[in-house]
Amino acid sequence: MDKRQITLKDIAKELKLSPSTVSRALRNHPAISKETKELVRDYAVKHKYKPNTLALQLRTNRNNTIGVIVPEIVHYFFSTVIAGIQDEAEKENYNLIICQSNENYGREVKSVETLLDARVRGILASQSKSTEEFSHFQDIIDNGTHLVFFDRICTGINTDKVVIDDYAGAYNAVDYLIRSGCTRIAFLGSNPHLPIANNRRMGYEDALRNHNISVDKALIQVCDTIELAREIVPVMLKIAPAPDAFFCINDEVASYCLQICKSAGYKIPQDISVCGFTNSYITEMTDPTLTSVDQHGFEMGKAAARLLINRIKGIEKKTGIVSKVIKTKLVVRNSTRN
Amino acid sequence: MDKRQITLKDIAKELKLSPSTVSRALRNHPAISKETKELVRDYAVKHKYKPNTLALQLRTNRNNTIGVIVPEIVHYFFSTVIAGIQDEAEKENYNLIICQSNENYGREVKSVETLLDARVRGILASQSKSTEEFSHFQDIIDNGTHLVFFDRICTGINTDKVVIDDYAGAYNAVDYLIRSGCTRIAFLGSNPHLPIANNRRMGYEDALRNHNISVDKALIQVCDTIELAREIVPVMLKIAPAPDAFFCINDEVASYCLQICKSAGYKIPQDISVCGFTNSYITEMTDPTLTSVDQHGFEMGKAAARLLINRIKGIEKKTGIVSKVIKTKLVVRNSTRN
Repeated sequence: MDKRQITLKDIAKELKLSPSTVSRALRNHPAISKETKELVRDYAVKHKYKPNTLALQLRTNRNNTIGVIVPEIVHYFFSTVIAGIQDEAEKENYNLIICQSNENYGREVKSVETLLDARVRGILASQSKSTEEFSHFQDIIDNGTHLVFFDRICTGINTDKVVIDDYAGAYNAVDYLIRSGCTRIAFLGSNPHLPIANNRRMGYEDALRNHNISVDKALIQVCDTIELAREIVPVMLKIAPAPDAFFCINDEVASYCLQICKSAGYKIPQDISVCGFTNSYITEMTDPTLTSVDQHGFEMGKAAARLLINRIKGIEKKTGIVSKVIKTKLVVRNSTRN
Repeated sequence: MDKRQITLKDIAKELKLSPSTVSRALRNHPAISKETKELVRDYAVKHKYKPNTLALQLRTNRNNTIGVIVPEIVHYFFSTVIAGIQDEAEKENYNLIICQSNENYGREVKSVETLLDARVRGILASQSKSTEEFSHFQDIIDNGTHLVFFDRICTGINTDKVVIDDYAGAYNAVDYLIRSGCTRIAFLGSNPHLPIANNRRMGYEDALRNHNISVDKALIQVCDTIELAREIVPVMLKIAPAPDAFFCINDEVASYCLQICKSAGYKIPQDISVCGFTNSYITEMTDPTLTSVDQHGFEMGKAAARLLINRIKGIEKKTGIVSKVIKTKLVVRNSTRN
């Protein structure tokens, strides 16, 4: 050990704080006051404290562990991504621990803390819908831990990412719906501050415009859960003229949408086409089976884990951001016209 | 620190091994030879080594973390259980980290190691289908970490558990099918060495016998994934006389079974009734909607987390095993006759 390097304990002793408070202050924990944070940070900067020295010491003789933060593990897409991450991580003998934010900012902040406490080597994260403040992600990087975003990237943070071509995926699906004769296409989307939701909406709108169909705002709704689908789809069916297609942000919403349209007396796909996004196993459970955009979650998980491991091992040497795009594919089944 | 207590490093130094080897030997890791294990254990016993001293030291100033091991997080049931665990854990300010075994024994062993390495305070586990050797679970207890099983309990280990009344759940569902006029009821089950699968099968058989219907082994199959359903259901439809009902181990299998029966020209429920197990959101996606046994996964997760936290905090003082049973409920929808 290098005696010249100060430790977290040294700072704590000098400032008459507990090591835990110092650690939290350095990680910008919300429970620590602004004054204490400034005090600790100033001291740390002045004495050239390297935040990951302790972690590196503890890390000796330890298994290599990667942390994953997902919004919801119940989602087929995220569990497929996790399967891909695990597949790639195992090849290199990395273990996986997973935290779910439940689409909740507070839980996401806690998850970061838990994973840093567990001294993971790197973190793969997909942000929650409710996250609008990003310093907890910056803390990961400041802590000397590698961070790669997947799918729901955080635009405020400068780090590696793996995304799908949401724009092209949406464009191609809507283009297909228009070519099959639909003109009143509703978009059941998600919170527009999420890049994936915004990119899909742009793909949707551009496909309409390129076919000289004007964008009708009444046909665009935030509707990304089955609970919202139960509320919103019946209301949209009453718009005049009614939609002749629904392009949905995920397969769960699409399958509930399909059921609601059928219950209201519409024939699928003769009266209304329904298209999902994910291409999960649900697509074979609905009647008729569901057309959907395949997100290739497994490949995304593999690519994200590969990138993270290459960063950990120093194989990926690029100093700037590495950004990978996974291509989507429209899988046509029986819920859309030919 | 108590100077009289020997540490893992002392043992390592004395025996000329790495601390990691000593740690693994004490945890009965498969990579360590029998000879080394005996050497380390004998020395540890002789010198009254307490295996969790180091962990306890490291644990100071640390967040309280609970580890969860599930077979597959993609399963609606397990993700519902996790939601319940998280709900209860948050109330007490415990954080959650999750590992999935992917129904694989080796991954389950690794998950135990990863969670112990991450120094969790307790572990909630549901065992994988392929696990037939249990020493990794015993290691958790030997390590001084609390362990509670949920749903898929491990009969070889003496520890707290939370289960559902699988027998009664299956009995009531099959009893309902018989009362609605079905007599050729197929059981799509799971590996019989899993207590949940065995208990449900006994419930199924007893319901038949109590109605004087003989058990036909041709109607009982291990079929617990959608891949197996695709293979096995078409074969079972060719049995003469054909089944007039399918009682399935989970909703995924039930929903695929329903689709396959419809594709083969059978009317649901007039010709064939289909009943699932879980009562997940899928039950509203199928056409007709799916009758299913509600497992109350959220309540199970809450009960398991509560029990674990009470053990950690010393509130639950019972020296023997605490065993909790969550009651199931049959939810009748349109895939079964009245």
